[in-house]
Amino acid sequence: MRKGKVLVAGVLVSAVVSFAGEMDDKALLKKARELFKPIPDKLEKVPGKETTLTPALVKLGKMLYFEPRLSSSHLISCNTCHNVGLGGTDNVETSIGHGWQRGPRNAPTVFNAVFNTAQFWDGRAKDLEEQAKGPIQASVEMNNSPERVVKTLRSIPEYVKLFREAFKGEKDPVTFNNVAKAIEAFEATLLTPNSRFDKFLKGDLNALNKTEKEGLRLFMEKGCASCHNGVNLGGNMYAPFGLVEKPGADILPPGDKGRYQITKTATDKYVFKVPSLRNVELTYPYFHSGVIWSLRDAVEIMASTQLGIKLSQDEVNKITAFLKTLTGERPRVEYPILPPSTDKTPKPVTTNMKHHMKGH
Amino acid sequence: MRKGKVLVAGVLVSAVVSFAGEMDDKALLKKARELFKPIPDKLEKVPGKETTLTPALVKLGKMLYFEPRLSSSHLISCNTCHNVGLGGTDNVETSIGHGWQRGPRNAPTVFNAVFNTAQFWDGRAKDLEEQAKGPIQASVEMNNSPERVVKTLRSIPEYVKLFREAFKGEKDPVTFNNVAKAIEAFEATLLTPNSRFDKFLKGDLNALNKTEKEGLRLFMEKGCASCHNGVNLGGNMYAPFGLVEKPGADILPPGDKGRYQITKTATDKYVFKVPSLRNVELTYPYFHSGVIWSLRDAVEIMASTQLGIKLSQDEVNKITAFLKTLTGERPRVEYPILPPSTDKTPKPVTTNMKHHMKGH
Repeated sequence: MRKGKVLVAGVLVSAVVSFAGEMDDKALLKKARELFKPIPDKLEKVPGKETTLTPALVKLGKMLYFEPRLSSSHLISCNTCHNVGLGGTDNVETSIGHGWQRGPRNAPTVFNAVFNTAQFWDGRAKDLEEQAKGPIQASVEMNNSPERVVKTLRSIPEYVKLFREAFKGEKDPVTFNNVAKAIEAFEATLLTPNSRFDKFLKGDLNALNKTEKEGLRLFMEKGCASCHNGVNLGGNMYAPFGLVEKPGADILPPGDKGRYQITKTATDKYVFKVPSLRNVELTYPYFHSGVIWSLRDAVEIMASTQLGIKLSQDEVNKITAFLKTLTGERPRVEYPILPPSTDKTPKPVTTNMKHHMKGH
Repeated sequence: MRKGKVLVAGVLVSAVVSFAGEMDDKALLKKARELFKPIPDKLEKVPGKETTLTPALVKLGKMLYFEPRLSSSHLISCNTCHNVGLGGTDNVETSIGHGWQRGPRNAPTVFNAVFNTAQFWDGRAKDLEEQAKGPIQASVEMNNSPERVVKTLRSIPEYVKLFREAFKGEKDPVTFNNVAKAIEAFEATLLTPNSRFDKFLKGDLNALNKTEKEGLRLFMEKGCASCHNGVNLGGNMYAPFGLVEKPGADILPPGDKGRYQITKTATDKYVFKVPSLRNVELTYPYFHSGVIWSLRDAVEIMASTQLGIKLSQDEVNKITAFLKTLTGERPRVEYPILPPSTDKTPKPVTTNMKHHMKGH
């Protein structure tokens, strides 16, 4: 498993860089380039993997991403909670799945997620391929099984043909692993390049206005960039929520111990993957609990819980203005045309599981 | 309200045309042209209305069609039940809406629906504009109110701008009526031209094979075309389900009296709008109750309930083969990029209404 750096509670890596007053634009750019990288326009491969993004694989992956028959109800697809028309997410506190059951955490955005060093809030999946298998099987999400997914896809001749084209040379290409591989490949095309911040990083000093530049300076100076750095301004390490000051139980529900639930290591209590701030303007509500709707509020909370500082209203405004420059060009996605089911396709099961379980 | 012809129970308008044995291809085409019309490639206006399909109106309509914030949960859009990637429908018995509540009838396809002379299974909406207002407000579907829809859209500056562009000259364009008008305009672009049957209608005698041509002949000769005619092979008249023989309660649930619930006229009991057969291969399961999954079964049931005849297996096969030639080219739809909410946007209400109502 690829692992990010871990910030251990109590060890505050304070501001990565420190500044003496104002910086000129060129110095600001130089510093920013040490910490951040722009989103590329396009990938040829899944970073760190052998998967080449061939047209056949991406086409199949897009169909599967929008395929409601991956869920037992035939109603929920990846796009339901990771909506490409919104910010690659559903913009509700925590997602609603099979039987209108509420999931435990806020849905992370799919945009640029391929650059995260692990997936899910607790990093329990090493990549998007592994991630894709989770929600399909989770009873509160798509409530399906690998066997039923494979049976469904094998019952539809057009899918069998598409798997053969996407996985050339494989004898039996319609497998659950290949479903996940194809979805990962499509997701690796969901990039949002050319944000104003990226234009700045590429050398256009006028891409940000004065307020936004001051926001960027504060973002680095105050220590936000200690965790939110790299191409995704996050997504590459873990940190305890409440590194300095523990937030209230509404924001950090005591029942969700984060990465501890995976590692069973005491120091991982309330440790979560640092989320990417790419397109943060579009990915409200915030935090794993999804209870904070205002970006300004999120900035203030982070400053106190993670850095132990109180930002002035002016500083909050400037950092928020900077964060809005992280909104990139959203991908253009043509809705896939999905093949019809056949007599052999398993029928949808739309039972409300909650009611079902109560009733029996 | 535009009204289709009504077939009164007991008055069986038997085969529109009668034949003496086989027909040659040219005679078959001539007869077919008297009963059916091809789907046009594109419309400039909503048929029978003043609405011109301007790019600004269609663009806005597409965004609204995919806009989950038209629902109170922010999770359900028009596309949820009328999925443009499938057959313009959801392919489940009856749709699942807010709080995972099950709706009473099977979702009709949106494809080519603009050519129907009325909307909904009971024809209670005269056009798609009127139709669009229904599900947004229905508590088992999107569970929203016109006031909240307007408040939501007015809170998002990009939408205000788009309404101004789509409804030029209107002082206050962000209205619930205009929401419905824009959605209708987009839906009028969701046509499926160039089916093999349409190619035949346009004069390509080889567009159908021998079996399919025999199916078409049987479709006209046996009386199917008495109700399923016109551009949509349906959608232009009403008929009692069980005109000759009443189907079982599983297929025709006694609680749903169809058009009678609207008109309160005794002869309208179990009267429904004749559904379009365009893309019928993609719009399973069948009938307003959505309980029949096989197209062959649907053909057999229609023959007995509506025409009082028993088709041979060979006849069923041929008619089914013909019906599959009604699958057209599905529209290419680029997923719209939706603008973010603001602090003034009403928050989603994801309460499961069933649970909620039980609890209080």
